[in-house]
Amino acid sequence: MTLKAIALNSTLKSSEGEPSSTERMLSLIATAMDKAGVKTQTIRLADFNIKPGVTSDEGEGDEWPGIRKKILDADILVLGSPIWMGQPDSISKRVLERMDAFFDEMDDEGRMVSYGMVAAVAVVGNEDGAHHVCAELYQGLNDVGFTLAPNAVAYWVGEAMGSTNFIDLPEVPKTVQKTVDMLARNSVHLAKLMKNNPFPGQK
Amino acid sequence: MTLKAIALNSTLKSSEGEPSSTERMLSLIATAMDKAGVKTQTIRLADFNIKPGVTSDEGEGDEWPGIRKKILDADILVLGSPIWMGQPDSISKRVLERMDAFFDEMDDEGRMVSYGMVAAVAVVGNEDGAHHVCAELYQGLNDVGFTLAPNAVAYWVGEAMGSTNFIDLPEVPKTVQKTVDMLARNSVHLAKLMKNNPFPGQK
Amino acid sequence: MTLKAIALNSTLKSSEGEPSSTERMLSLIATAMDKAGVKTQTIRLADFNIKPGVTSDEGEGDEWPGIRKKILDADILVLGSPIWMGQPDSISKRVLERMDAFFDEMDDEGRMVSYGMVAAVAVVGNEDGAHHVCAELYQGLNDVGFTLAPNAVAYWVGEAMGSTNFIDLPEVPKTVQKTVDMLARNSVHLAKLMKNNPFPGQK
Amino acid sequence: MTLKAIALNSTLKSSEGEPSSTERMLSLIATAMDKAGVKTQTIRLADFNIKPGVTSDEGEGDEWPGIRKKILDADILVLGSPIWMGQPDSISKRVLERMDAFFDEMDDEGRMVSYGMVAAVAVVGNEDGAHHVCAELYQGLNDVGFTLAPNAVAYWVGEAMGSTNFIDLPEVPKTVQKTVDMLARNSVHLAKLMKNNPFPGQK
Repeated sequence: MTLKAIALNSTLKSSEGEPSSTERMLSLIATAMDKAGVKTQTIRLADFNIKPGVTSDEGEGDEWPGIRKKILDADILVLGSPIWMGQPDSISKRVLERMDAFFDEMDDEGRMVSYGMVAAVAVVGNEDGAHHVCAELYQGLNDVGFTLAPNAVAYWVGEAMGSTNFIDLPEVPKTVQKTVDMLARNSVHLAKLMKNNPFPGQK
Repeated sequence: MTLKAIALNSTLKSSEGEPSSTERMLSLIATAMDKAGVKTQTIRLADFNIKPGVTSDEGEGDEWPGIRKKILDADILVLGSPIWMGQPDSISKRVLERMDAFFDEMDDEGRMVSYGMVAAVAVVGNEDGAHHVCAELYQGLNDVGFTLAPNAVAYWVGEAMGSTNFIDLPEVPKTVQKTVDMLARNSVHLAKLMKNNPFPGQK
Repeated sequence: MTLKAIALNSTLKSSEGEPSSTERMLSLIATAMDKAGVKTQTIRLADFNIKPGVTSDEGEGDEWPGIRKKILDADILVLGSPIWMGQPDSISKRVLERMDAFFDEMDDEGRMVSYGMVAAVAVVGNEDGAHHVCAELYQGLNDVGFTLAPNAVAYWVGEAMGSTNFIDLPEVPKTVQKTVDMLARNSVHLAKLMKNNPFPGQK
Repeated sequence: MTLKAIALNSTLKSSEGEPSSTERMLSLIATAMDKAGVKTQTIRLADFNIKPGVTSDEGEGDEWPGIRKKILDADILVLGSPIWMGQPDSISKRVLERMDAFFDEMDDEGRMVSYGMVAAVAVVGNEDGAHHVCAELYQGLNDVGFTLAPNAVAYWVGEAMGSTNFIDLPEVPKTVQKTVDMLARNSVHLAKLMKNNPFPGQK
């Protein structure tokens, strides 16, 4: 059985801008997933026009439909958000809003289209906010049908009011690498189980 | 002394779309402000191109600078957000991100440019989430220099898993009108005091 | 394979007080679990002396150790919290704090003692706050090793500023019963899978 | 005009236990308040029996009524909470629950008994969570009638997954001292204004 992961990078900066700390964290996760036999495709969301709305297609120019298809083709979703003011950023929120449409998108057994997928979260910031970003994303992702393995987050933040970026750390702290490995190990284990044993539908 | 209020409507729908429940709440607030002698200008954010970023000008095509100017020209800011998944929406988050720039925008006395302004919040949703939207917006707004009068929110949500829109209620519930009046009364009172008695600067 | 569930009722009222709306929701969940072949034991936390702290035994008079043992003997944990001010209550927070000790309580394979357990959440309130209570509890429970099946919450709240208690509703709304059934179905399915296929340890 | 401040320390440890990092932060704030001419009384909540509930007197053995009286005798309330799992602790939540009673405690003009008081927040933790603790406490405190001056928080947290306590830092970081000074300066300024110019009542 081959599993696929998709990683969404919700940094506010497009690929043409400065390097992204969130990208570095997602890259660590992709490497750990790879060791577990899972290939990860990463999408830099700021490069796309994801229109505001809560449907799966917001019409002309909306590039969400293509991203949505890639999400649903995968077995594991990793949502990466930078922290601004201790909170998830506007692009990760946009993603949740667009997935709100899943509530009405059911398969023949009455399960949301996302059922059977495992979600995990990556969070980075200069300082403070990782746990809360997790809380927000966990709740949103779980509401729209994703399963969460234990310790479903890899994160880094600096000391209070710090200004260091994760991407500028000379080395990845061991504690961070440990959360990355745990995230990959647990999410892959769970995704395999669920792929072979789908959730029951509603009669 | 004449005070001015600015109301930001962060509905995901542009003016050309369906009517906005958030607009109805902001309109109630504007009426209550008017009774207290304060004129309110409302901006429908989805009509503008507010680019992602955390500076006050994100370059070509960015329409935030004009909105930012109007905010800082006012004495009271009312930030209105719909609820999606129990959380503030991506457009209200975008506003907070852009106001993150205030941290580095000081007057001669070392006060953020927003010091002296009162903020309030309006929240509507089919169901559940108003208190949390408040919490997120209060914290973000307070971080970037706004003052919060007591009971700085007017909100409405329906019963759990409801689908009624605030705009479709035949009448505004008395409890809602009460929060609207309280918000206007307290915010105007505080804004007047603060206009006449600015916060001390940092030496 | 027989599974066991434990439900923690964190209402602020002891059993001698008024009836608990949280109890009613937990009872609905227990009935649904029962249909799926899982017996649930419910504990009314306000009847016990759970001392403040972040260890598994806070000394003389602390009744947490007995509750902790029952949690770890079960396969599924349902944490039920009333809403106060849109937030989880102090007793559910106390439970999270005491489970903070799990971070240092590992089995021989380096897995937290809670690994392999599924958690779900029940939330009730007169009004507003269910999604946020979920977010807080999901994050806390996931941090200390629990797995979350999709749609891991059953909840009810009334309209904004309402004062009706869930226990006084003449009938359980169909939408609520649906979330209860989904919670039980998904959590039991996942708990079975995980019991037969434990998460890998850390080498 | 002489103003009084009350600081509530919601550490989980009683005075007989280890020293409290929250205490250190509250002590810095008290010193800054003192410079602004305001005396602060600090209460270590874990030393008292604050019973669960949402009224102002939960009967035999309840020591909240005495604390409540001291709060309402003051002009400024500073609520200090340690961070556990990125969230406010169970004792600060207990305080909010007990203040829920203010909703029904009005003066002759229909204002909550807390109207006219300024609130501020102090947060410390080994790592991550300060902004979210703020958000929770700001919302709860504002709901029950408190006013929030700009930058109403002083906080410190270490790097992600750190284990250093604020009380063990050899020196108070300059950035922290700056937030302390700002908190005191702004809160005292606002409390004075409001004491001389009470919020209007409801007719």
